[in-house]
Amino acid sequence: MDARTRIEQALGAAIADAEGPLCPPRLATAIRYAVFPGGARIRPQLVLAVAHACGDDVPAATDAAAASIELLHCASLVHDDLPCFDDAAIRRGKPSVHRAFGERLAVLAGDALIVLAFETLARGVATVPGRLAQLLLIVGRSVGMTDGIIAGQAWECEPRIVLADYHRAKTAALFAAATAAGAAAAGVDAEPWRGFGERLGEAYQIADDIRDVAATTEDLGKPIGQDQAHDRPSAARELGVHGALVRLEALVNDAVTSIPPCPGADDLRKLIRAEVLRLLPEELSQRVA
Amino acid sequence: MDARTRIEQALGAAIADAEGPLCPPRLATAIRYAVFPGGARIRPQLVLAVAHACGDDVPAATDAAAASIELLHCASLVHDDLPCFDDAAIRRGKPSVHRAFGERLAVLAGDALIVLAFETLARGVATVPGRLAQLLLIVGRSVGMTDGIIAGQAWECEPRIVLADYHRAKTAALFAAATAAGAAAAGVDAEPWRGFGERLGEAYQIADDIRDVAATTEDLGKPIGQDQAHDRPSAARELGVHGALVRLEALVNDAVTSIPPCPGADDLRKLIRAEVLRLLPEELSQRVA
Repeated sequence: MDARTRIEQALGAAIADAEGPLCPPRLATAIRYAVFPGGARIRPQLVLAVAHACGDDVPAATDAAAASIELLHCASLVHDDLPCFDDAAIRRGKPSVHRAFGERLAVLAGDALIVLAFETLARGVATVPGRLAQLLLIVGRSVGMTDGIIAGQAWECEPRIVLADYHRAKTAALFAAATAAGAAAAGVDAEPWRGFGERLGEAYQIADDIRDVAATTEDLGKPIGQDQAHDRPSAARELGVHGALVRLEALVNDAVTSIPPCPGADDLRKLIRAEVLRLLPEELSQRVA
Repeated sequence: MDARTRIEQALGAAIADAEGPLCPPRLATAIRYAVFPGGARIRPQLVLAVAHACGDDVPAATDAAAASIELLHCASLVHDDLPCFDDAAIRRGKPSVHRAFGERLAVLAGDALIVLAFETLARGVATVPGRLAQLLLIVGRSVGMTDGIIAGQAWECEPRIVLADYHRAKTAALFAAATAAGAAAAGVDAEPWRGFGERLGEAYQIADDIRDVAATTEDLGKPIGQDQAHDRPSAARELGVHGALVRLEALVNDAVTSIPPCPGADDLRKLIRAEVLRLLPEELSQRVA
């Protein structure tokens, strides 16, 4: 089974476990709408790629880790799009959850996805209980109030903001969790894998900033120019598109060099280089390649 | 140490674990504001009471279960008070979180409290990993999209609503989790304890409905008459105050009768009868006693 199919099945199973005749029907519909069809599923693919490189001895644990991280990512998109934050009308090429279902169901769908992420871990990792607490703490930290995506979003509510801290919390934290969780799900020491994910997260954020100024709304499935419109920190605004591309290449080199020794390290390096190019608008990715 | 002190310490420790120099300061302040000073802390007291009745052999696991359930309760209050739901100005005798910190930080504080609840379980139950998955599933279900408090709140967004299902999800679910989690934290089969919590949750909801029509704003720390104002289902509106009191007594009798055999069953029955009286406005509690 290819990685994408495996991820969609894991997400489908996680949601199916939580549905049932008692679940309020509009809430269930809003949750499926928030998760399917997905974007690039980059974070769960990273979980699978790292677990694969480390042996992937308990695939159910890997699937649960991948699904939980994607569910948390979807939750953050639903809440970030709310009127009090970005008030985004469009997400993944269709109306945002609050535009389609109302603000109340958007708040609740985001909440439910957070809860579901932890339930999914509890179910999927049950056969290897010794790995559960560590996976929970890895995943919890990636979204938490200290340096996770909630902290990242909360920096937008502070009078002063440091660009590096903001991006580390808002984006890199979930990537660091993806690589660490991939290792932990495979029973491997997770800590050495965090740096790889952090660098990839920073690289992804820069690619996102570049897309926001250099892609089209059609490519992106959401409006471009949002960083400027919301006066948000952005590497492309700060360094220019060329400067941001140079920084991106350096980070990707740094990331693949930092991959800890493991059976599948060579394949993982190749995969990462290929995937990064797919994050850029076509014209730019040809220039980098 | 008395139960109340133990709960405040467990909550303080859970939040202290998540704070630190990296946490955005306004978010940290909003989270403490949402949790302290607390209300009656009824749900975590129930966790402690059941664990105590069952032996409480790993107090750290009990504390974590109690704190996680109270954190989730606080999260639900913060999100329920949001402008798109109740738009409540006052909670626990002070401005609601969104009035004090703005809507964005209220959304994020609620999200962070949900995450923190699961992290707290992972940390506190780490020494007895065999109990962790079950506790996670008990706690997750109590707030989840199927029949937890998120489902309960989501029933308010459906065109048709069944009063019993609504109350079971919105209130009884967290009480059922409190009794089940108290047993599970003490290493005892949790399932037989759910019914006791469910009945207590229904009783609590009825007491709450009664308070909403028969107490004062000063007693309650929040405005009265909210069920009528929001046209919400309410036993006191449906049965009258006297009818609701009769129903309350029957439920409490039913609850204490359903306590599973355990070393501390007698003390637990006495505790529950005494605590229920404290939920009613003074004049009514004298009438019932």
